[in-house]
Amino acid sequence: MMRVKLTVSYDGTGYCGWQVQPNGVTIQEKLNQALSDLFGREIKTIGASRTDSGVHALGNVAVFDTDSRMPAEKMAFAINERLPRDIVIQKSEEVTADFHPRFAKTNKVYEYRILNRTFPDPLLMRYTYFFHRNLDVPLMDEEAQALVGEHDFTSFASVKSQTNTFVRTIHSISVRRDENDIITIHVEGNGFLYNQVRIIAGSLILAGSGQRERGFIKKALEAKDREAAGPTAPPEGLVLVRIDY
Amino acid sequence: MMRVKLTVSYDGTGYCGWQVQPNGVTIQEKLNQALSDLFGREIKTIGASRTDSGVHALGNVAVFDTDSRMPAEKMAFAINERLPRDIVIQKSEEVTADFHPRFAKTNKVYEYRILNRTFPDPLLMRYTYFFHRNLDVPLMDEEAQALVGEHDFTSFASVKSQTNTFVRTIHSISVRRDENDIITIHVEGNGFLYNQVRIIAGSLILAGSGQRERGFIKKALEAKDREAAGPTAPPEGLVLVRIDY
Repeated sequence: MMRVKLTVSYDGTGYCGWQVQPNGVTIQEKLNQALSDLFGREIKTIGASRTDSGVHALGNVAVFDTDSRMPAEKMAFAINERLPRDIVIQKSEEVTADFHPRFAKTNKVYEYRILNRTFPDPLLMRYTYFFHRNLDVPLMDEEAQALVGEHDFTSFASVKSQTNTFVRTIHSISVRRDENDIITIHVEGNGFLYNQVRIIAGSLILAGSGQRERGFIKKALEAKDREAAGPTAPPEGLVLVRIDY
Repeated sequence: MMRVKLTVSYDGTGYCGWQVQPNGVTIQEKLNQALSDLFGREIKTIGASRTDSGVHALGNVAVFDTDSRMPAEKMAFAINERLPRDIVIQKSEEVTADFHPRFAKTNKVYEYRILNRTFPDPLLMRYTYFFHRNLDVPLMDEEAQALVGEHDFTSFASVKSQTNTFVRTIHSISVRRDENDIITIHVEGNGFLYNQVRIIAGSLILAGSGQRERGFIKKALEAKDREAAGPTAPPEGLVLVRIDY
């Protein structure tokens, strides 16, 4: 038996998120089907990050076990032939049998992208959140620094979160505007709560558009109350960039 | 009567090109409908560039005449409310009554984008042409320089071209690879023949993948024969970036 780790990229626009569910097509379902088809028996993957409906990934991670003799690194090509075009395996590799994508220690990297200008760009609408009011990016970057470190992120988690603890560590966060008016919130941490990055993005947009006072993010964090933070920003701006093990 | 110039951006994926035609939905048709709806009578636009099915634009240009008293620069907002999300007016402005988007002297800027790596990126598939064999970008750039200047571009025009002359001027062309393995062919000229940029791209890909000898582009140009150049590269890589008047 061999455990295989897959690096999975996808355009989440047309899917009801990562995780298999009874109503609606999911990325994991498509992946399980492709693998079962390739190896001729039912295969169920274990995913690292259960991204939400409409959220994208450049490097989500999934594992599965197989007794196939195909070299693990060749599998990406064979799996891709059986996947829809909007899901692409970037890498397949053998890992040890005890490797678990969700329980292993990780650094997860997410980016939330906002197009901040007068009119939308049709070539970016699937992969950025369009926001036309001017955003003060240096202020957003400054506010965001309050989130760095180990904290109770209750204020920045969906009230529907199912978790034993709201304590997570954010290693770094930055907010930058590029020459095409795309603002990127880049955040790295040891794990994220349900909707955490989107609530951080929604809160930073409130701060950056002058709708909250300086210190808003720090206060929201300290309140340990979902009501104290901003709204959950829409899914199209969010990309799971990579997971480092 | 006022003549209004529109700067039009669109994701061409779902459209049968710019120009109104009996079979299939076009960008110009959607724009004419939005304008007719806004001003309460039938309006027909004149477009600058009849982009092909599947080709994108950041700055195509169209004009129309109206006796509306709405300030021209406000029209973009009102038109956008009546357009589908994948067509967006970036600017509306009054021009002189004799301004014609196709017969006026122009500099047109096109970009053709190729994703050149082992596996496709689902977030780029709509806006780049995926090509997995390694491309020699400095060689492509060198080969492309033969196209600069005033030439008879018969070899680089669709045999279906309807034109009095195949002579056009390319002001500049460059081929560059960025850090994400996107190769961009950037070309500026006074006008382009039917499929010209896509045939240039298809020919440069042949040159860059080592399937033709050095000097291929120059020889193809001199042959004045469509058979001497490479294939027409797929539409998804092409973007009409802007038209300078």
